[in-house]
Amino acid sequence: MAEVSNDRAVLLIDCPDQKGLVARVSGLLYAQGANILHADQHQDHELGLFFMRVEWALAGSGNPDALESFRSAFTPLASELNMHWQLHRIQQRPRVTIFCSQYLHCIADLLHRASAGELACEIAVIVSNHREAEKLAAFHNIPFEHIPVTPSTRVEAEARQLALLQSLGIELVILARYMQILTEDFVARYPAAIINVHHSFLPAFIGARPYHAAHARGVKLIGATSHYVTSVLDDGPIIEQDVARISHRDQVEDLIARGRDLERIVLSRAVRWHLEHRILCYGNKTVVFD
Amino acid sequence: MAEVSNDRAVLLIDCPDQKGLVARVSGLLYAQGANILHADQHQDHELGLFFMRVEWALAGSGNPDALESFRSAFTPLASELNMHWQLHRIQQRPRVTIFCSQYLHCIADLLHRASAGELACEIAVIVSNHREAEKLAAFHNIPFEHIPVTPSTRVEAEARQLALLQSLGIELVILARYMQILTEDFVARYPAAIINVHHSFLPAFIGARPYHAAHARGVKLIGATSHYVTSVLDDGPIIEQDVARISHRDQVEDLIARGRDLERIVLSRAVRWHLEHRILCYGNKTVVFD
Amino acid sequence: MAEVSNDRAVLLIDCPDQKGLVARVSGLLYAQGANILHADQHQDHELGLFFMRVEWALAGSGNPDALESFRSAFTPLASELNMHWQLHRIQQRPRVTIFCSQYLHCIADLLHRASAGELACEIAVIVSNHREAEKLAAFHNIPFEHIPVTPSTRVEAEARQLALLQSLGIELVILARYMQILTEDFVARYPAAIINVHHSFLPAFIGARPYHAAHARGVKLIGATSHYVTSVLDDGPIIEQDVARISHRDQVEDLIARGRDLERIVLSRAVRWHLEHRILCYGNKTVVFD
Amino acid sequence: MAEVSNDRAVLLIDCPDQKGLVARVSGLLYAQGANILHADQHQDHELGLFFMRVEWALAGSGNPDALESFRSAFTPLASELNMHWQLHRIQQRPRVTIFCSQYLHCIADLLHRASAGELACEIAVIVSNHREAEKLAAFHNIPFEHIPVTPSTRVEAEARQLALLQSLGIELVILARYMQILTEDFVARYPAAIINVHHSFLPAFIGARPYHAAHARGVKLIGATSHYVTSVLDDGPIIEQDVARISHRDQVEDLIARGRDLERIVLSRAVRWHLEHRILCYGNKTVVFD
Repeated sequence: MAEVSNDRAVLLIDCPDQKGLVARVSGLLYAQGANILHADQHQDHELGLFFMRVEWALAGSGNPDALESFRSAFTPLASELNMHWQLHRIQQRPRVTIFCSQYLHCIADLLHRASAGELACEIAVIVSNHREAEKLAAFHNIPFEHIPVTPSTRVEAEARQLALLQSLGIELVILARYMQILTEDFVARYPAAIINVHHSFLPAFIGARPYHAAHARGVKLIGATSHYVTSVLDDGPIIEQDVARISHRDQVEDLIARGRDLERIVLSRAVRWHLEHRILCYGNKTVVFD
Repeated sequence: MAEVSNDRAVLLIDCPDQKGLVARVSGLLYAQGANILHADQHQDHELGLFFMRVEWALAGSGNPDALESFRSAFTPLASELNMHWQLHRIQQRPRVTIFCSQYLHCIADLLHRASAGELACEIAVIVSNHREAEKLAAFHNIPFEHIPVTPSTRVEAEARQLALLQSLGIELVILARYMQILTEDFVARYPAAIINVHHSFLPAFIGARPYHAAHARGVKLIGATSHYVTSVLDDGPIIEQDVARISHRDQVEDLIARGRDLERIVLSRAVRWHLEHRILCYGNKTVVFD
Repeated sequence: MAEVSNDRAVLLIDCPDQKGLVARVSGLLYAQGANILHADQHQDHELGLFFMRVEWALAGSGNPDALESFRSAFTPLASELNMHWQLHRIQQRPRVTIFCSQYLHCIADLLHRASAGELACEIAVIVSNHREAEKLAAFHNIPFEHIPVTPSTRVEAEARQLALLQSLGIELVILARYMQILTEDFVARYPAAIINVHHSFLPAFIGARPYHAAHARGVKLIGATSHYVTSVLDDGPIIEQDVARISHRDQVEDLIARGRDLERIVLSRAVRWHLEHRILCYGNKTVVFD
Repeated sequence: MAEVSNDRAVLLIDCPDQKGLVARVSGLLYAQGANILHADQHQDHELGLFFMRVEWALAGSGNPDALESFRSAFTPLASELNMHWQLHRIQQRPRVTIFCSQYLHCIADLLHRASAGELACEIAVIVSNHREAEKLAAFHNIPFEHIPVTPSTRVEAEARQLALLQSLGIELVILARYMQILTEDFVARYPAAIINVHHSFLPAFIGARPYHAAHARGVKLIGATSHYVTSVLDDGPIIEQDVARISHRDQVEDLIARGRDLERIVLSRAVRWHLEHRILCYGNKTVVFD
């Protein structure tokens, strides 16, 4: 979308649906002098829920503390209307880590996109249980932490990872084909803040070796899925999915090669949307204001 | 989208962008007791334009004349803010005609969809310069008018068509592979109210025999485009496009066969969106609130 | 593909892979004076299997009994090489039945395509446990058999269906959203000759109400699958699949509406490929020579 | 496709169509003891042309000079049947150069794929009229040549480029968003051996700034095209195309960002197919045996 000003705010809301929500929120923004750039809302009539994303230019408001001023004015309204809400300043780029193992296609893609300005974040550290990504990290001047994981050292390894993430103020964990399953405890520390890519069209082919399973089943399309990680394997809220056509000529190796392109695309889209504060989770689903 | 009430209103707005538009429109709706079901807006920052579509339940307002009451209240605001606007009652189904020639795949598809409740309109008459569609019209109990067109009778034929359309109160003309070019005069009578399907991915392959041209050029995807008709051939605002993959194995006949599925889909989507008041034209483009 | 002659033969082969297969089959065809129009083969190196489809013009061979002559010449070779094989004359259009229930979008689409010449078959009868399709059958001049099915009359109903199919020499049964599960006994009578459409991207959402399940899971794409029916529900060899993008805005009703277009397309493609003798089954998979 | 042996040969043929071609070629291969892994053919009935690609394992033939032996045996047959043909040994990886300017997304993608083993080639040198790609070249240990180009130095610059390419034995030139137009003379030196990516769905939006043109026209899908370069701008044989859906919300910047993913994919596919000897050009079209 066209750049109007770089100093922008994003408000994300979810709350019980009721009459007048848009009027009251947009009225408050108008009263605060906000120059709205994008606004999008969604109602789930079945569940009686309301979701909204508003993005506005802070610069145009003539108020250097426009964000805090808005926060003060909005808090009582949000409280009255029983809202969950987040307020972000676009200029404050989230601090991120990427976890990977031996396959580098996803992390190489994310690092290229970040360096090209496609992903608004600070990649504070790359964590891997292998060493394949080390040179790539060095090329991009990003610290690399090699933390091996074995069944017997898993608890200890996760403790090291969590300490590292906490010390760096990490807000988002990206699993770029990280081939270890995180414990429930780890996952609980980053609710709706761990994004994984699974190499199938979920919920088909949950678990290990989905391309082999897809080949065995004889499907005519393969897929990839990016989703938030929850304590149940491959079951978290889906953010993005894509598919590619295959045929009887394609062997498992071909599916794996084709799938790499899908994985890159669905993971990078999910990360970008998350960083741009476009995603709201509710139940086991996502609203993506794209 | 879920049915909350069948008696609903839709407001479509386009106007110069300015602060507070959403606040003022949604504030007015709130004051009128409207139960908003869907709201969507779009800003073109480059051109400084604002577009909005709001859909709300009339039934819940406790006011039998809620629509007219809203109209009265909204008119001065619209005038003040220099708006173009349309107000529709969903229950009032637009009166429509379908024009076709010898190929029946698009009209057969539209008639099936209309009979299955997918298209909210009254098809008042089918007009053709051939007789192939006559039985289909009879099956669906829709009047059929055979109006032959030759270069020498074009003016007279259009006069008959226009008289017929006027007598039936037609609001939308659907060209379902109608193989005659309408005169500028005819087109001027139905601005943004004639939908055509062109069997290429416009602006590639404008004009006659696009599948032959696509085959000659050796493209790897073919397309179809639905658009509003303007006085310049195949140049009107594009509503929807879709493509299908082809290969060197496909001859012109295969492209034509594949293309039929694309034509059906892009035409029926455009018609449905138009009937649901989801489309706004500006310049030579469309905003589709889908 | 371009029409060279309408009197054509198709040979379909599957057999253990070994050196010289293409040479020996094509050598025999050459010796018989066959003018090959299309030839395609596939090797599954993992399973050591060879698949081939050859299509040739009979007319050009100067031999009125060219097909039988080829059959005589080919039989010993096929026997020597341990082949499964089928020999078809394109002019002999398979006799087909369509089964449906209350939803008419798939059957209406198939009937339109058949009448437009897209499907090379004779639709000998339409069978339904409801009466909704009766008028459509009449419009297309196809006999309609109403055979109600209840849990207590299933066996008897299937006996009636099977007797009808046998009396009409039916070679292919198309389940166009037929909402009854066929018994193992029925299925065993038509191996690789019953085509079903399932309204999900199999193997996701097997069983009843897949659109509801897809909505509950929050997927970002919905799909449809056409497959041969086997004794295990929704588990037969997949012929074709396609998907459409959805978003959080789409409710179950929208998924159902979107899905209808997918169902039509994947079912009609599967039927066309089957009728053109382009499909070979092996294990639980298909080779589609398209 | 599954690896059976790494020492494989590929034969590509195009010639006038006539009876017995497959029989004679496959017969010869059989006589030579070739273990065919893949075979594909195509007939253009309109133009009376025949195309074939055969891939076989050399190792299994028990003949260390199997390729030369085949060449000797095949030459007279090819001559008799008036064939154009190419014979490649898969192990002999083509020598390649990548040309780029300031945008790095395509070259970064190609280099990653090459390092991951997806592209069977030796990238002998990277040539650019800018310096942005220099560090990337160094990371991949590939020589980088900075050859600036201005209108007044174009002839001289191309002379330097051509001398460099000749000295390195370059067989394929990849234009990875190289923003200079090559002269007719340069192009003539590498017939069907220069692959370009154009950032539109050709033949729509030929020339400069296609995303701007697409935005101005209001299309609903954007595309990218990889093609062989000929002396006419953006007019060479198309190898691959792909598209992505956009909406009225997308500004030119969004089209450019979306398009980058398309460009990467269509260019890398074209390069891979070329390197695997899967492409035949005829007239202004390609046959891609994928």
